[in-house]
Amino acid sequence: MNSEPIEFYFDFTSPYGYLMSERIDELAARCGRKVKWRPILLGVVFKATGAQPLAQVPLKGEYSKRDFARSARFLGIPYAAPAAFPIATQNTARAWYWLHDSDCAMARRFAHAAFRAYFTEGRDINDIPTVLDLAEKVGAGDTVIGELEAALASPEIKDRLRREVDAALAKGVCGSPYVIIDGEPFLGVDRLPQIEKWLADSGF
Amino acid sequence: MNSEPIEFYFDFTSPYGYLMSERIDELAARCGRKVKWRPILLGVVFKATGAQPLAQVPLKGEYSKRDFARSARFLGIPYAAPAAFPIATQNTARAWYWLHDSDCAMARRFAHAAFRAYFTEGRDINDIPTVLDLAEKVGAGDTVIGELEAALASPEIKDRLRREVDAALAKGVCGSPYVIIDGEPFLGVDRLPQIEKWLADSGF
Repeated sequence: MNSEPIEFYFDFTSPYGYLMSERIDELAARCGRKVKWRPILLGVVFKATGAQPLAQVPLKGEYSKRDFARSARFLGIPYAAPAAFPIATQNTARAWYWLHDSDCAMARRFAHAAFRAYFTEGRDINDIPTVLDLAEKVGAGDTVIGELEAALASPEIKDRLRREVDAALAKGVCGSPYVIIDGEPFLGVDRLPQIEKWLADSGF
Repeated sequence: MNSEPIEFYFDFTSPYGYLMSERIDELAARCGRKVKWRPILLGVVFKATGAQPLAQVPLKGEYSKRDFARSARFLGIPYAAPAAFPIATQNTARAWYWLHDSDCAMARRFAHAAFRAYFTEGRDINDIPTVLDLAEKVGAGDTVIGELEAALASPEIKDRLRREVDAALAKGVCGSPYVIIDGEPFLGVDRLPQIEKWLADSGF
């Protein structure tokens, strides 16, 4: 059985990405796999694919709102449609990479905290004071918070996120969530049953 | 338990529509429901939603080809990617409505025959001689075949399909397959688990 980590690409404003974030680690762990989380920016991906944000697509936008909530109920995950949707998430994603470089467990907790703050409380998780508050809640001390705040204003972290998104595009990432297992890509939280079968059987 | 028929909208060139066509009747029957099949034209729907055919979308087109075949394997349904994809399907859809008006069981057999001819043999199911051949194979006699051929050239059948597609758009149909159960819409064959739960529990 293959034990390579699986890759999980997502945008923090993606409802289906949030739902995947609540399931993917446990599912992978049952099959002896770890998961590499990789936040991206759907705005950049959509420029490449020519897609519009779902909420803005005629007919499909209305459908999607209903499907987000129903898919959450189906999976048993708390969900409240945020009043502002979609939102920019570059600060959230940049903070995630910065935290991840020194403490990947804290970055994982931060990702969960950010997704839940947006999709259950409707908080603007791209707002820098909110980003810092979330980091504090998941264990960052005063020194780390100060360094994170400075880092968010630096060109390095902007370049870092840009490189990560470009690398994702180069791998074919065309939406959120996008999961890659041993080179096989799965788009959407609705691919969970296929992912489960793939992990159990190492392909099908 | 509600026993109203469920509605199943699809385009004959839609791989996910084909996969749904192989499962929806049996699934509905287990819950005491019948299914109203309704062929539509995705080209008209895409004009309303601004979408492009999946195969032509950068990145997502490549992903989709892989996902069509994998989703078929996942569901245990024979599938061979047609060399010409997508194709126009107005003649197939018109023939379906014409057959349905006099013999709905024959229309159901015709739909299965057309989907399978396209997605397992790569036949051009919009070609009129092929449409007539498929109708013959599912039981249409010489007289019916002659009438069907004449009907396909008539303005009435064109109007009929146009009205059906407009009616589907008015109901919010924004892709294929699109299933409506007691007013609740489900887009995509990947919604089968949700459809199954909805039918079993009359909602969730």
